[in-house]
Amino acid sequence: MIRDRDFIKNSTVPGPTKEEIRCLVLCKSELTSQDIVVDIGCGTGGLTLEFAKRTSKVYSLDRNPEAINLTSKNLEKHGLKNRVQLICGDAKDEMDKLPDFNVLMIGGSGGDLPFLIEKGFSKLKKSGRIIITAILLETALEAIETLKKFDMDVEVINAAISRGKIIERGTMMLSENPITIIVGLKRN
Amino acid sequence: MIRDRDFIKNSTVPGPTKEEIRCLVLCKSELTSQDIVVDIGCGTGGLTLEFAKRTSKVYSLDRNPEAINLTSKNLEKHGLKNRVQLICGDAKDEMDKLPDFNVLMIGGSGGDLPFLIEKGFSKLKKSGRIIITAILLETALEAIETLKKFDMDVEVINAAISRGKIIERGTMMLSENPITIIVGLKRN
Amino acid sequence: MIRDRDFIKNSTVPGPTKEEIRCLVLCKSELTSQDIVVDIGCGTGGLTLEFAKRTSKVYSLDRNPEAINLTSKNLEKHGLKNRVQLICGDAKDEMDKLPDFNVLMIGGSGGDLPFLIEKGFSKLKKSGRIIITAILLETALEAIETLKKFDMDVEVINAAISRGKIIERGTMMLSENPITIIVGLKRN
Amino acid sequence: MIRDRDFIKNSTVPGPTKEEIRCLVLCKSELTSQDIVVDIGCGTGGLTLEFAKRTSKVYSLDRNPEAINLTSKNLEKHGLKNRVQLICGDAKDEMDKLPDFNVLMIGGSGGDLPFLIEKGFSKLKKSGRIIITAILLETALEAIETLKKFDMDVEVINAAISRGKIIERGTMMLSENPITIIVGLKRN
Repeated sequence: MIRDRDFIKNSTVPGPTKEEIRCLVLCKSELTSQDIVVDIGCGTGGLTLEFAKRTSKVYSLDRNPEAINLTSKNLEKHGLKNRVQLICGDAKDEMDKLPDFNVLMIGGSGGDLPFLIEKGFSKLKKSGRIIITAILLETALEAIETLKKFDMDVEVINAAISRGKIIERGTMMLSENPITIIVGLKRN
Repeated sequence: MIRDRDFIKNSTVPGPTKEEIRCLVLCKSELTSQDIVVDIGCGTGGLTLEFAKRTSKVYSLDRNPEAINLTSKNLEKHGLKNRVQLICGDAKDEMDKLPDFNVLMIGGSGGDLPFLIEKGFSKLKKSGRIIITAILLETALEAIETLKKFDMDVEVINAAISRGKIIERGTMMLSENPITIIVGLKRN
Repeated sequence: MIRDRDFIKNSTVPGPTKEEIRCLVLCKSELTSQDIVVDIGCGTGGLTLEFAKRTSKVYSLDRNPEAINLTSKNLEKHGLKNRVQLICGDAKDEMDKLPDFNVLMIGGSGGDLPFLIEKGFSKLKKSGRIIITAILLETALEAIETLKKFDMDVEVINAAISRGKIIERGTMMLSENPITIIVGLKRN
Repeated sequence: MIRDRDFIKNSTVPGPTKEEIRCLVLCKSELTSQDIVVDIGCGTGGLTLEFAKRTSKVYSLDRNPEAINLTSKNLEKHGLKNRVQLICGDAKDEMDKLPDFNVLMIGGSGGDLPFLIEKGFSKLKKSGRIIITAILLETALEAIETLKKFDMDVEVINAAISRGKIIERGTMMLSENPITIIVGLKRN
């Protein structure tokens, strides 16, 4: 995985998703090198870059031009620019223009999560996955309820990660904020 | 419990121990109003004040004069000053001068934890408790090993607390750093 | 606190609420010895007994007769029976018959949480507290939303507690399931 | 990742390492398809299989013949048998016979952790990694201290994962036990 410190950051754009969470999301995505990925709310580009390292067809969306700019810079820094199409705009409108995909990652939904899942589900290939990372209780629950409505296999993981900071006196455990990862698998 | 925000703070003194951790320590202390408590490494005074609300015989030590000053201010603010004797100095030397006690709280040990536990054990009344809060893995383990050496009943609790921050979009869970609470009970 | 192992248990009745969670709930209740407490869904009696140790006016409800029976046995075992009135029935109906109270604890709501909070709020004294313990994401969120509707000060705590099991090879940390504690304070 | 339920299990052999922990270990290993991996204390084979899916040169050791047998069965079930050499014996003796490697995974050390790390370090290629998963506080600390002694870059991660169990009433979060993952990187 790319280390958190190896991303170019910007105080006005959220992210990058912490390394361990990126790791868990990638595992849950069961991505293959042939897969098409759509990443909504790409922010700093943390997950976009990880997807791009593993497949060459990634569409990353954000309605904040600064996020698109930052993701672009991070892709360039890590030599992954030609694998990702960046789209600045509202996912509600832009998704229609995309091809069908295998993985839909929703890291930011701007209040439109049920709509995005519904739209995403219609464009999701068989055995495809919709993954939502939630820092709000409300988002976690909305994701679970909407995925259940589409009769997906739903998996819910809460990850509370602490990292040890090694100082002279010893090893101090410092928490990252807990994240809920919700995964919906489209049945065959 | 006193709310975290109701303590006078100082950036050079650690603490106060977070409310939920104070709550767990207080429960584990099984304090009665007749008990004598010694609080080593009192810092901001978080635990000292909670002990003082429940018994009138608290001795609080810190080798940092600023910590003693800050604890003093917090005791005054909450009307608990006459219940606590503040001692600025090295617990290794000062403990000998104290009467026997029922509860020994060690929040900061300055590298002398085994010595402090040994000394504390010798002055601990029957059914008394030694409680250590550890933010370092090394401290947690040193506490466990030393308490076991004195054949105490040892209990180990790790508390990972998150608090919900209610914002417009929903409820964001924010982690406090995990703390290990180690309790040794002196058998009869 | 009463140790978990000191409760009489029954495989068909949930509880007792784990010691550390009882401890946090008690702290958040800010109970005084004059307070009136209502405990809905008392189960094994874990929280009922802790409330009863601190005030003499506790009303405990459960619609499962086995829970009432088990709480009764635990009250007797710990000499607290005369401090608690046990009510077997549906909290929706029974709450009307109770006097106004200072603390409403809802550990089990049988799907009626918003109604119970609404009813509870109308009988809650000024500066009183409604506390909900939730093991379901859905319950946590429903509690938060309903308390906010009544313009209460809302606090949300998620507690992930592990306990160390001391075996020959060392100290193995074993998790309890995470619990969300939601507290609503009735403003003056 | 292979799902936990897709391993053949045996009540006398520990494991498999839970899916999310396997995921984090794999990420931290930074494994490439050319790498040689040694997995000490393979147990049920959870990590062995994940390594084998990503490189063809895995040596898995366990001193319990039942563990070797179980790992063998799981490799066969998942078509990975020809990628792993299984060795039943004491890692202290067997490591000498192995070629130098890029990743050393120690999931079980039978009390010989410092020796195994020392021996492993001498056979570890440049930029190679030693990874220890610890369920005991003592193991975590011993790993950290030994890796530091060899002047490795040390990383410590504690993962507290809960999984949502979707029942009729809602989503119940159930904890897995916390695991500490310690990673040492051999500097160039």
